[in-house]
Amino acid sequence: MTAARHAVVAIGNAIVDIIGRCEEDFLARHGAAKGAMRLVDAQTVERLYGEMGPAIEISGGSAANTMVGLASFGGKAAFIGKVAGDEFGRIFRHDIGAAGVTFETVPVNGKAPTSRSLILVTPDGERTMNTYLGISTDLDHGEVDPALIEASEIVYLEGYLFDQPQAKAAFRQAVAIAGKAGRKVALTLSDGFCVDRHRAEFLDLIRSGVGILFANESEITALYETTDFDDAARRAAADTPLAVLTRSARGSLILSEGKAHKIPVEPVPKVVDTTGAGDLYAAGFLYGLTAGHDLATAGRLGSLAAAEIISHVGARPERSLGELARSRGLIS
Amino acid sequence: MTAARHAVVAIGNAIVDIIGRCEEDFLARHGAAKGAMRLVDAQTVERLYGEMGPAIEISGGSAANTMVGLASFGGKAAFIGKVAGDEFGRIFRHDIGAAGVTFETVPVNGKAPTSRSLILVTPDGERTMNTYLGISTDLDHGEVDPALIEASEIVYLEGYLFDQPQAKAAFRQAVAIAGKAGRKVALTLSDGFCVDRHRAEFLDLIRSGVGILFANESEITALYETTDFDDAARRAAADTPLAVLTRSARGSLILSEGKAHKIPVEPVPKVVDTTGAGDLYAAGFLYGLTAGHDLATAGRLGSLAAAEIISHVGARPERSLGELARSRGLIS
Repeated sequence: MTAARHAVVAIGNAIVDIIGRCEEDFLARHGAAKGAMRLVDAQTVERLYGEMGPAIEISGGSAANTMVGLASFGGKAAFIGKVAGDEFGRIFRHDIGAAGVTFETVPVNGKAPTSRSLILVTPDGERTMNTYLGISTDLDHGEVDPALIEASEIVYLEGYLFDQPQAKAAFRQAVAIAGKAGRKVALTLSDGFCVDRHRAEFLDLIRSGVGILFANESEITALYETTDFDDAARRAAADTPLAVLTRSARGSLILSEGKAHKIPVEPVPKVVDTTGAGDLYAAGFLYGLTAGHDLATAGRLGSLAAAEIISHVGARPERSLGELARSRGLIS
Repeated sequence: MTAARHAVVAIGNAIVDIIGRCEEDFLARHGAAKGAMRLVDAQTVERLYGEMGPAIEISGGSAANTMVGLASFGGKAAFIGKVAGDEFGRIFRHDIGAAGVTFETVPVNGKAPTSRSLILVTPDGERTMNTYLGISTDLDHGEVDPALIEASEIVYLEGYLFDQPQAKAAFRQAVAIAGKAGRKVALTLSDGFCVDRHRAEFLDLIRSGVGILFANESEITALYETTDFDDAARRAAADTPLAVLTRSARGSLILSEGKAHKIPVEPVPKVVDTTGAGDLYAAGFLYGLTAGHDLATAGRLGSLAAAEIISHVGARPERSLGELARSRGLIS
């Protein structure tokens, strides 16, 4: 096994977020489950966009956000995901590249537009996502560069990709390559409803080859079909060597080798927009892990990054997370 | 003269802002004068975008921002400006419409893209703009709907349009229609360098038909070619019935009928991004004026709107300015 060029390579949906504010009743009127992600078709995205208030556009995508966060800490990150050769594709490519993440997936012209997610933020700061996948559904195993996987310490997989059969094939291929090359596989479950749609396959993947599992409370309880978080956590610890479970305001729990580390949240004056909280927690944790810190420090770096992201609109950090962590004495 | 349907109709560039942070030396390296707006061609905008850091996209345009601000106070606003039938045009149209501003200018396909301004924000919060006009240069007198001008109490003109000969013709037509219909004409000088480029024509327009002149310190001193603000203010008061002069942290000065009203700034905890400060001051002032408030109250509404806009990224308000003004007891 040669030295890794990248700390982490992620595979995920390449998305531009269209973020606007709305009242609670707007969600109900449009049949959107608060806090969740739902897939919508081109017609629905048009209608919803026409009815939602003024918005701003910011590059997003769960695993892409995580890689940008990792790079902001100073970690070497790469991303695999599909964009079209349109304006949103250009925005996505610019932003991820300008953030220092290696992104070489070739844009596709003339098939479908770049993915976009209409993100509705309610007054409490909670985000509800309506995602039109567009060209993201075109991601297949041909996009997975074996050399890139082999050159990365960790392959990070976004659960949302399970909604696309071709992308699932890309996943499996990445896991196989990583396994052969002795690299670790990390998986984030992404969303409770997404877990409901693919429970058996997720469990199969977790038990067969996932070294690090990221999930929040609703995802891990959905995975094990229980309402008891502690029960779900115990089962996750049995199924995977390292389970990283986030619990919003209740902090996070890291389970590894029979030990549990409780990590507090980093307090924020005001929660503006929770978009990207889980993605950035994962960024901090993965940075800490690949930079050689202990699990508790990795968790605190995750909390710090999550706090930065929820204190402003959008899921891309507005300041250097490395500087932020140094100013807190978490890293040197 | 029939009752006005709109408080204000504005004519300006329809722009999507691409806002990113940069260090001071990035501006120097790219020959951009800090705090100013410069026009760039398609090649320059490409190169600059390629070299600037991650960005976010938010609808902008000086007069358009002012109309969105006016609508946020509860005023009836309309906007005339040119977009292309592309993704950025769609974003612009959605955002201004969703903000409650009447916007009916027909998009143009296949000529040039929608205008965009690369806005570089330095650590002190100051913004420096690099604008590619694109389809905005296509605005001409054909876009000026006489019925819309006649149905608005005030026609608000963005000085930036003087950089385009065709748009200048649209300006003059709007002034003529407004004059005949007994409507007021307001003009914002937009930018000191813009004033340098068109000084004689600005002075001619101001002396012949502008009822309300908006300018900041650098613009008004550029107009009268003096370094003495008080001297420039005196001359502005002689040239126009109502001069509204903003001075950043030093507040604003309203000159009318031989009287001067000094308006303090509204304090903000932290200046995040000054983009839109002047635009939103004008929004508050125009709302106050058209809603029947005295000049001092109109000025304070301007200060309040400017404070909201500089405390976050982007030049579109993030909260209801009407609610904000009511919470301060400025309006009921």
